[in-house]
Amino acid sequence: MKNGFVISILVILKFSFSISDANVLSFDKIRVTQESKEKKLHINGFEATTSYWRTQAQNKLKSQLKHKVNENVAKNVIIFLGDGMSLSTVTAARIYFGQKQGLSGEESLLSFEKFPYIGLSKTYCYDKQTADSACSATAYLTGVKANYATIGVNPKVQLNDCESSRNKLNQLSSIMNWAQNARKATGIVTNTRITHASPAGTYARTANRDWESDADMKAFPDARKCSDIAKQLIREEPGNLFNVIYGGGRKKILSEKIIDEEGQRGQRIDGLDLIDEWLTNKNSPKAYYIHNSEGMNQMNHSNVEHVLGLFESDHMKFHLDAGSDQPSLKEMTASAINVLKKHENGFVLFVEGGRIDHAHHQNFAKHALEETVEFSEAIQTGIEMTSEEDTLIVVTSDHAHTMTMSGYSKRGQDILGLNSEISDVDNLPYMTLSYANGPSGVKKRYKIKKDEMKFNDYRYPSLVPLNSETHGGDDVPIYARGPHSHLFTGVLEQNTIPHFIAYAACIGGGLTVCDTRL
Amino acid sequence: MKNGFVISILVILKFSFSISDANVLSFDKIRVTQESKEKKLHINGFEATTSYWRTQAQNKLKSQLKHKVNENVAKNVIIFLGDGMSLSTVTAARIYFGQKQGLSGEESLLSFEKFPYIGLSKTYCYDKQTADSACSATAYLTGVKANYATIGVNPKVQLNDCESSRNKLNQLSSIMNWAQNARKATGIVTNTRITHASPAGTYARTANRDWESDADMKAFPDARKCSDIAKQLIREEPGNLFNVIYGGGRKKILSEKIIDEEGQRGQRIDGLDLIDEWLTNKNSPKAYYIHNSEGMNQMNHSNVEHVLGLFESDHMKFHLDAGSDQPSLKEMTASAINVLKKHENGFVLFVEGGRIDHAHHQNFAKHALEETVEFSEAIQTGIEMTSEEDTLIVVTSDHAHTMTMSGYSKRGQDILGLNSEISDVDNLPYMTLSYANGPSGVKKRYKIKKDEMKFNDYRYPSLVPLNSETHGGDDVPIYARGPHSHLFTGVLEQNTIPHFIAYAACIGGGLTVCDTRL
Repeated sequence: MKNGFVISILVILKFSFSISDANVLSFDKIRVTQESKEKKLHINGFEATTSYWRTQAQNKLKSQLKHKVNENVAKNVIIFLGDGMSLSTVTAARIYFGQKQGLSGEESLLSFEKFPYIGLSKTYCYDKQTADSACSATAYLTGVKANYATIGVNPKVQLNDCESSRNKLNQLSSIMNWAQNARKATGIVTNTRITHASPAGTYARTANRDWESDADMKAFPDARKCSDIAKQLIREEPGNLFNVIYGGGRKKILSEKIIDEEGQRGQRIDGLDLIDEWLTNKNSPKAYYIHNSEGMNQMNHSNVEHVLGLFESDHMKFHLDAGSDQPSLKEMTASAINVLKKHENGFVLFVEGGRIDHAHHQNFAKHALEETVEFSEAIQTGIEMTSEEDTLIVVTSDHAHTMTMSGYSKRGQDILGLNSEISDVDNLPYMTLSYANGPSGVKKRYKIKKDEMKFNDYRYPSLVPLNSETHGGDDVPIYARGPHSHLFTGVLEQNTIPHFIAYAACIGGGLTVCDTRL
Repeated sequence: MKNGFVISILVILKFSFSISDANVLSFDKIRVTQESKEKKLHINGFEATTSYWRTQAQNKLKSQLKHKVNENVAKNVIIFLGDGMSLSTVTAARIYFGQKQGLSGEESLLSFEKFPYIGLSKTYCYDKQTADSACSATAYLTGVKANYATIGVNPKVQLNDCESSRNKLNQLSSIMNWAQNARKATGIVTNTRITHASPAGTYARTANRDWESDADMKAFPDARKCSDIAKQLIREEPGNLFNVIYGGGRKKILSEKIIDEEGQRGQRIDGLDLIDEWLTNKNSPKAYYIHNSEGMNQMNHSNVEHVLGLFESDHMKFHLDAGSDQPSLKEMTASAINVLKKHENGFVLFVEGGRIDHAHHQNFAKHALEETVEFSEAIQTGIEMTSEEDTLIVVTSDHAHTMTMSGYSKRGQDILGLNSEISDVDNLPYMTLSYANGPSGVKKRYKIKKDEMKFNDYRYPSLVPLNSETHGGDDVPIYARGPHSHLFTGVLEQNTIPHFIAYAACIGGGLTVCDTRL
């Protein structure tokens, strides 16, 4: 009993620390709740009082009033992209995060939820009501909406139309081009293949997101004159100038004749070893290729000017499945900032939590929430390693998913488990989290058992059977902090995002804060 | 062909006007698209160009830069509450709104989506992960989170605990009390029963939201000492001081011995005619009771000090089902503002679009979107009849629902119809809109036919069979405009909302802008 009490104290202290950042509580008032008979219902005992909520709200009011509009020039910019991180994903992940600490969960906040400004992003593409990660990456990285599955080209380029994508008038420059033109350092970090749609949005121009290697283009004879995405990364601007390239996807970079460090064969049929080519091009003792955590840890970051880190043959592993040889998104972010921050003109860094989306597509809600928490931790690292005075951090998503969170569970109910209610029609239990569609299909409802859900790969129920759960068409939030973050509020078309960033950082061809100061 | 062209021109002009308000376009550039073979795919032809999106984003940037922080005192406040208006409801309703005008739809904006500031509201209640409209009304109207299904009392009051709810220490004052203490005029407007949970949050204190009339309390002998909600509205502060009371629900106000104007019998067993009592108490030629549109139209608003308008025995009809005798939410809002705006100390008005929620509970997606558009029009009226200089308008929702919007329809696909894709598992079509649960049950999927969807009462498919679709637990947006609207940004606990409003309007017991000016 005594031990239980001590543990609860520790848990509450941890909780206090977490919400202290949000300035919502006076800590001396916190006391420990009566131990609940059920796990995880750790509601702060003061919540039952009027004064708790009034004080909490007045403290939040005071902290809102303290916000000063930050009109500095953004020396550095970090764009954190949670792929498929819908609003319901954020709410559920916040609860999961709190519950992992033994708390009720609903009262928690993820790192980026403490940011001062929020906007909503309209994600539709030129030709689709609901976006994919390619057309949306084009929007939030080049400032122009595009056709579904195309990257870095305007809507005149139809899917698979290589010829039209080669027309310079249809090609788009990305925020990374703008940053490099302003002599800023640049880097990209993802836990997907480095040639996957979102990261490719930073550097590629292609009429089909699937053309990641030349092997992927074999079936498209009309596309012979177009470069695959991997080749664009290594050979063309802005990719060939990136200071940091971290992600998975070695197989798209390596010839089928090459076996990589983990025994996996490359996929390219043109015989190229683009890792070797990258190192040869750099021709510098300050350029490194690394392939695992050990390599990253051994690197003397003060001596690194360029680094290519490819940590998997395909996508990197889900956080829950990864061994210690795979750097976490947080570790990759920290390493990238350590390389980039040496540059006196500042940097633009793109960090993708790319596997939130993959988890959702498989109806793997647990993985999706875990990946979101991992993403939140990477953002926390970004916050800690930079200054709000000179670094604009923008956190957003490319599109939603179809996961929802059904009522009416009691506080602290395991967000990954059964709802505390059952159906009043068939008297069967139901899950709090479910999907409109996906590979789980509808059958799951009729065999819901508690033990199934213990597996990380448990597929949460869905209505319409599809091999891959679809994206959702609803808006996604934008969270912003730092110079000119106050611009990111209201309902915004997704393609305005890089224009606002460019304004703050004095890059690109549009209006910037440096112009207005002339 | 010529006629078609003229119609398209008109459509595009209407479109231009709609987005001109959002300052996103230069109009001289708009031209008419090639007529699509399919209905409703009216995409502005310039969207295919790079310059369209770059110009649109630069214009939006300029309009964001023009925002001036408004630190005036809010003489007037209007709280618009879209009951159950989740983020996906707003996105889908925006598309529906555009498509009703013959446009593609995704590019549209509802009236409140043009507001300068956005926050996100965490809606969980003290004891539930997912809120109902009672505990959430307590949060956004009194500033304190409460237990599920309780109103105007703190979490020490459990459901049905009349005794505890009578303890003054557990009772809460609402923003309407605060406004009346500051000698402001007050009013409430809803299209539900006036005694329903959300409007009751403005005036009632009860351990059970269902205690709308004394008849509803018959089964609760322990509750004998508690007043029903209708009686609290007519007899107690702040309800008895409201200048405007508009809604449905006559049956909760009238004795079972009374037949109302539309032939419906009252429900009260205590013999009371609370309409008559209200008029007697007012004892003034400036107090009016009205029961239909005609009564509202005939009223000389400049001569009205108090008005009680009850337009239905139960909830008011869905907008699509209503006849001309029922005033629309927009008309009620206009009438309320005309009554209230005469007061030199200003006013606080609460307007609920309450039937968005009812539609969702029935899986009636079409009604839900229609009610949201109707709600948007009421807000447009609020915008037009007040000044941004002295009137704070806050638009939000009490909780989400489980409706989602599946991918990957093409642009302009009927938001209420089938997705433009079909399942790659069973080759059946699927709806773009669907629910996690509800009365439609899963069976609908296997008999989807186009003609079924024509009915306004078509139930959209859902996964888990329930008699009433549940609320969703994800955050809901807050949209704000006017004095101190810049406070409404970031992720906020729902109960902070009235504290922020009170600050702006110099009402209530917490910090206000008037204090800080001393």
